[in-house]
Amino acid sequence: MIKHNEYFEGKVQSLAVDGHEKPATVGVMAAGEYEFGTELPELMTVIAGELQIQLPGESEWSTYRNGQSFNVAGNSKFQVKVPVNTAYYCIYG
Amino acid sequence: MIKHNEYFEGKVQSLAVDGHEKPATVGVMAAGEYEFGTELPELMTVIAGELQIQLPGESEWSTYRNGQSFNVAGNSKFQVKVPVNTAYYCIYG
Repeated sequence: MIKHNEYFEGKVQSLAVDGHEKPATVGVMAAGEYEFGTELPELMTVIAGELQIQLPGESEWSTYRNGQSFNVAGNSKFQVKVPVNTAYYCIYG
Repeated sequence: MIKHNEYFEGKVQSLAVDGHEKPATVGVMAAGEYEFGTELPELMTVIAGELQIQLPGESEWSTYRNGQSFNVAGNSKFQVKVPVNTAYYCIYG
């Protein structure tokens, strides 16, 4: 069964993509600002929209749009600003 | 609010991506075989996995993998074979 997850009262939702080399999700973030925590390292790719990211321990923000990816270390927190509803794909591990 | 849709008893699920030029969804299809019906024309892109597609009125099947896209006419039905859980992005209209 495809697992559906909701975070931040439904403002971020994801669907699990099982059966590949590493676990993954596709999801949507509604416009807003969030702090996410990682367990495993994450490779995030923007499918449609824009994510402004402040990685752990960094002061500046980086912007990622359609087709662009970024890595986040495991066991860390990162800040996200979402100017428009954004679809993403995330690979864990 | 991000709309979550389920089809085929949850074997296909999608999340709406609003706020862009055209309505869109991201979703996951579990391994299996499906017949989909369109209202608006659809542009489907495989994010991760593989979709084998038989377009309306055609006899042969075409295979699409990560990053590959195909168009489906509006108001039509098409056949899909999914060998592995597959994440997709669909733009309507």
